[in-house]
Amino acid sequence: MRMVDLIEKKRNGEVLSESEIHFIINGYTNDEIPDYQMSAWAMAVFFQDMNDKERADLTMAMVKSGEEIDLSAVEGIKVDKHSTGGVGDKTTIALAPLVASLGVPVAKMSGRGLGHTGGTLDKLESIPGFHIELTTQEFIDKVNENKLAVIGQTGNLTPADKKLYGLRDVTGTVNSIPLIASSIMSKKLASGADGIVLDVKTGTGAFMKELSDSKELAQAMVKIGTKLGKKTMAVISDMNQPLGLAVGNALEVKEAIAMLKGEGPEDVLELCLTLGSHMVVMAKKANSVDEAREALQEAITSGKAIATLKTFIEAQGGDSSVVDDLSTFPEAPFKIEVKAQSEGMVKSIEADRIGTAAMMLGAGRATKDDDILLDVGLILHKKIGDAVKKGDTLVTLHSRTEQAAEVEAIVQKAYEVANEHIEAPTLIYEEITASSGTGFVL
Amino acid sequence: MRMVDLIEKKRNGEVLSESEIHFIINGYTNDEIPDYQMSAWAMAVFFQDMNDKERADLTMAMVKSGEEIDLSAVEGIKVDKHSTGGVGDKTTIALAPLVASLGVPVAKMSGRGLGHTGGTLDKLESIPGFHIELTTQEFIDKVNENKLAVIGQTGNLTPADKKLYGLRDVTGTVNSIPLIASSIMSKKLASGADGIVLDVKTGTGAFMKELSDSKELAQAMVKIGTKLGKKTMAVISDMNQPLGLAVGNALEVKEAIAMLKGEGPEDVLELCLTLGSHMVVMAKKANSVDEAREALQEAITSGKAIATLKTFIEAQGGDSSVVDDLSTFPEAPFKIEVKAQSEGMVKSIEADRIGTAAMMLGAGRATKDDDILLDVGLILHKKIGDAVKKGDTLVTLHSRTEQAAEVEAIVQKAYEVANEHIEAPTLIYEEITASSGTGFVL
Repeated sequence: MRMVDLIEKKRNGEVLSESEIHFIINGYTNDEIPDYQMSAWAMAVFFQDMNDKERADLTMAMVKSGEEIDLSAVEGIKVDKHSTGGVGDKTTIALAPLVASLGVPVAKMSGRGLGHTGGTLDKLESIPGFHIELTTQEFIDKVNENKLAVIGQTGNLTPADKKLYGLRDVTGTVNSIPLIASSIMSKKLASGADGIVLDVKTGTGAFMKELSDSKELAQAMVKIGTKLGKKTMAVISDMNQPLGLAVGNALEVKEAIAMLKGEGPEDVLELCLTLGSHMVVMAKKANSVDEAREALQEAITSGKAIATLKTFIEAQGGDSSVVDDLSTFPEAPFKIEVKAQSEGMVKSIEADRIGTAAMMLGAGRATKDDDILLDVGLILHKKIGDAVKKGDTLVTLHSRTEQAAEVEAIVQKAYEVANEHIEAPTLIYEEITASSGTGFVL
Repeated sequence: MRMVDLIEKKRNGEVLSESEIHFIINGYTNDEIPDYQMSAWAMAVFFQDMNDKERADLTMAMVKSGEEIDLSAVEGIKVDKHSTGGVGDKTTIALAPLVASLGVPVAKMSGRGLGHTGGTLDKLESIPGFHIELTTQEFIDKVNENKLAVIGQTGNLTPADKKLYGLRDVTGTVNSIPLIASSIMSKKLASGADGIVLDVKTGTGAFMKELSDSKELAQAMVKIGTKLGKKTMAVISDMNQPLGLAVGNALEVKEAIAMLKGEGPEDVLELCLTLGSHMVVMAKKANSVDEAREALQEAITSGKAIATLKTFIEAQGGDSSVVDDLSTFPEAPFKIEVKAQSEGMVKSIEADRIGTAAMMLGAGRATKDDDILLDVGLILHKKIGDAVKKGDTLVTLHSRTEQAAEVEAIVQKAYEVANEHIEAPTLIYEEITASSGTGFVL
């Protein structure tokens, strides 16, 4: 087999076999296939696409390129959640204890990552004493005991994906459905999940701006997971504005805690109930989505959810009293109010600009060696469809500096206030299951 | 400027500016742009194509990537000919002295190359004593004196093209009209020609199998040349069977000499008259193609053409008596006749297989360090449309070994004899000039 022939085969729109795809991925992982052939192949995939079987084969080849996490010692059906990412997305921190409180085992492997704010690990570290340094045995024991533990990424998972992702980033081949879907799904599968609930964001602040593209990606991932024998479903949710009101590390943890107390923003709650009810059903802790949703709401009202969070925090060395007294979280010294310059209704909030503002305040990292600040960020006071009067506070910046004119200007640019009636956007656009796919045969 | 943005721009079907194209080619030549970005870009070009201006800009960027030959010391209008290559193509050896005999200056830079037989340089070296080691000054002096000299490639011409061609070869990006056209044209332009006559082959034995593809390539090259201020035209000629009857090094030189004496195969003569008449007109040595053709025929009949060949051979150290006595050429010890196994008319002769047979006899080189044999090759006795009886000789192999069963088998496979009436194929399909292009505005 020669790589140049496989590049031409894909370039000509033909279908690659399982052994051909494994040849490509193994050869690339082992440095036998050079970057310049892999990038030409990726560009050919960009133009010629892959069919369902090729996508599943590619995903499995990437899973097999490295280690796989064995979660068989964790009791019950392990259901993982993955979000394609957006601004203000603190879902994991609220959702994990919420579903764990109903007995769903959550063995969460999480990352720090690059972006507007830190990753889930960074956010959790804003809880005094909390740490994620656990041995694999401790991790499994804690999940069995408390139904929830979080650990940093261990082992050499999907090295082919890491290598290919780095290459795609510099060769104009990121934006390809089969490559994105196999990248995400290979990581989830290598992490040992039995079931996967996907939160595919759509809108101006998401990687996929168009609903049709988000739907295509969601369908692609659901088909891959299903074909590879994992229960998989996807929710398409709105990212035309930030999720919730808080953007930042400690600020987002506080909002997640508020939600678990029944005091959080409506959209965060609704998204958690939607994703969570599917997770609970997948884990066979409820017979229907409606029953699961009711149980989740009851877990919030009864305090069971917040109790699970406290146990989880303590089990990983954290001070759980922060849950009752949010003032013990790190707090930025300066609060700067950004005020509305005109009257009307909020027509749009560019999530990307809000993210950039958070980044400029120090909440995120651009390269993996950057330090991040846990206390800084933004609190939104107005969202799309809200009425504003001139001088109303749109956003409060939580800043380490007294002046932040540049950040204020960006926030001003992010908001569009119009003199017309604006409806709040839809939060959940669609739910994609294996049977709702387009003609996919199991 | 970032290469990844330019890859995406082309990937999205947008037009690259002159400065963007120069950034790409300069960066690649200087190793600032890595192979993996260049191959992704080439694949994007494969799918999205380039417009006329981009193609000309790409060609000029490749010309400027290295040295350019200065032929200004050569008197007159220098017209170069380029063929896209085929089996039995000895055109250069016959055509160069033919047009030089009418005063067209031919300053030929030629290569050895890889393939079924050697390149023009190898073929000429089958003339005892002939050498191509000339200084640039000697080369120019000889062209001014005799209107014809041949030299090996000197200088670092179009290094970007060399590097890109090597990369395209292993990344499935060879077969792209803008990349092929700019590669050929950059080499011609860097070689200092004032005018260019292109012989674009079409058919089963050519790089372009389909007439429509050959026409597209011819138009692309004519547009590039014209846009860059060079007189350029193309002839589309047949390569559904080998050109002429001889395939091999010395064998082809002998056929070229025969043609200059008026004793060569009809197709070689016709192609030389067609290409030559355009060269003569471009060099302003005739007022019309008809007038040029008549003068070329007269040069053959009068012996002027063959006299020019002799002078040329002597000027480069060769023994010109070979022209009068072809028996002094190296001669393979064994002649093996391949006979027809059935009766009918020759329907097809797969030129590629005939080329492979020549290669197996030792006439060509697969890698640049291989030795080639000057004496071996094939003489075809039957061409498409010829009637054959069972037992007629189709081909005579000129071999170094007494037995050549494998080669015979390949030649048998190359010939298809059918029990039906077959017409000889068209030799010249079309002539492409700047004004016959598809809507190209000068």
